[in-house]
Amino acid sequence: MSLLVNKEKYFLEKYLKPCADVNEQFPLEIGDDCAIISSSEDLLISSDNSVINVHFPSTLDPYFIAYRALAVAASDIIAMGAYPDGYLLNITIPEPSDEWFKQFSNGISDFNDDFGTNLIGGDLTKGQLNISVTVFGKKSKKIIKRNGAKVDDDIYISNKLGLGKKGFELYNKQILDLPNQYLKPKLLSKECIEAINPFLNSAIDVSDGLLLDLNRICDQSQKGAVLTIHDDVCINSIDDVVAGDDYVLLFTCAAKHSKAIRKILPNSIRLGNITEEKEILVTDKEGKNMNFEKLGWDSF
Amino acid sequence: MSLLVNKEKYFLEKYLKPCADVNEQFPLEIGDDCAIISSSEDLLISSDNSVINVHFPSTLDPYFIAYRALAVAASDIIAMGAYPDGYLLNITIPEPSDEWFKQFSNGISDFNDDFGTNLIGGDLTKGQLNISVTVFGKKSKKIIKRNGAKVDDDIYISNKLGLGKKGFELYNKQILDLPNQYLKPKLLSKECIEAINPFLNSAIDVSDGLLLDLNRICDQSQKGAVLTIHDDVCINSIDDVVAGDDYVLLFTCAAKHSKAIRKILPNSIRLGNITEEKEILVTDKEGKNMNFEKLGWDSF
Repeated sequence: MSLLVNKEKYFLEKYLKPCADVNEQFPLEIGDDCAIISSSEDLLISSDNSVINVHFPSTLDPYFIAYRALAVAASDIIAMGAYPDGYLLNITIPEPSDEWFKQFSNGISDFNDDFGTNLIGGDLTKGQLNISVTVFGKKSKKIIKRNGAKVDDDIYISNKLGLGKKGFELYNKQILDLPNQYLKPKLLSKECIEAINPFLNSAIDVSDGLLLDLNRICDQSQKGAVLTIHDDVCINSIDDVVAGDDYVLLFTCAAKHSKAIRKILPNSIRLGNITEEKEILVTDKEGKNMNFEKLGWDSF
Repeated sequence: MSLLVNKEKYFLEKYLKPCADVNEQFPLEIGDDCAIISSSEDLLISSDNSVINVHFPSTLDPYFIAYRALAVAASDIIAMGAYPDGYLLNITIPEPSDEWFKQFSNGISDFNDDFGTNLIGGDLTKGQLNISVTVFGKKSKKIIKRNGAKVDDDIYISNKLGLGKKGFELYNKQILDLPNQYLKPKLLSKECIEAINPFLNSAIDVSDGLLLDLNRICDQSQKGAVLTIHDDVCINSIDDVVAGDDYVLLFTCAAKHSKAIRKILPNSIRLGNITEEKEILVTDKEGKNMNFEKLGWDSF
């Protein structure tokens, strides 16, 4: 019998291979049992799923499904003070089509152009639409963990909250003008993350909501926090502090670095301080305590 | 407000953290944005999804779902002549429960004991049950690719075909005695794969069926193959050559290594040879041409 092309191979060859450069760091063409990462340095690696009707609506254009899934995963590398180099992509889909793959691979390709990353492998299989991205980057000199927050550290976000929520609302009105932080999350640049790295004690990306993600820093650092939500923190309403999908960097650093932080991240906002006591106190601009029913997004 | 434990964190802490050792190679506890792989050598990395009702039945015990998903993914590292060290595990599940996670984490734990591997990170999210495993191992001296088959190479499988199919049939009759190659795939040992590595020109694991996987070797090597299916190749019936789920190693090597192969892999079976002409010819023990409607398993 002649050699065969099955569906998996057809879509892989036609749409995914063009997104995969072979170079010194990734010396093997996609399509083998494994990919090779050629690295003499330690690697940061993270894996994230984007599931239909959980992380994105069923109507979302495959271009944005791809771009968003990759950006959301890459954001975890940036949250540790490093930058993504490449990723594996597992696509679970009920029935693949040329139209879907054409758009989806355009999203991959544009993401690679924007972030200088490379697709190096993955899997294509049948099931409910679910995009699993495993992204990695070379360890930076200083790894910024969640557990490094120190008492009296300033707490910052790299930009205002609510752009993700606003982007989703615009998408729901079919206003698809870019930039849109929901459809194509913009992340910190490589230059920014390299410049800010030495100053940070702890960091996380705001994916599930500011308070939930701050909770993770406090929990792992065995600390607490006091913060004030001024008018300039939220672009929509006060609910932006628990909305998530922002992909801004939430970080803590010693107060003495405030000038450097402002210089590198002119849009950053100081929210408050890390405290000894293990609780999070949120006040409004008048100093009144604020309470929230939930701290952020939980997929369950 | 006090610090919070959400569902994701609850299951992570209670069931997954105990499967994750911190050591020199994996210096970071799970629960941060990324994992760290401390390695001065190149890495082999591969990612595989196991989806409910596609790769396993909805009735399958979570213990076996975990063990199988990990073994199937690890098999890809072995297929390149190396051995798995660790993995990231993304769990998509409709509604997590203590009972499910208890069994599932026992499967992880037993897999780690059997293979000397470590869970280093991942993701837990809502959706149709889908287990995504990204496994990696240190590059061995010689990387065995699919595209290395040479004309006149002998073609071998490391063991008979059909144990996966038989295991699944036994499972369907609720006969759960072990060993069962479907429920708990047994893979080549580290010693075996290290010993055989220098002799191989190409290799792949038989996951989707012998003929489909041989097709992949031939396609990527730009070669063909002639093989004879003797009685000792299949344990059930002739359909075992297209059944898949075997996770035996299919490999090619120069004929002069036959003694070494037999010594390292006494259960291995020589099936035929690689040819110049790009087609696969299969004959039965009487030399009669055999044809198959499909070459193996395709999830679409």
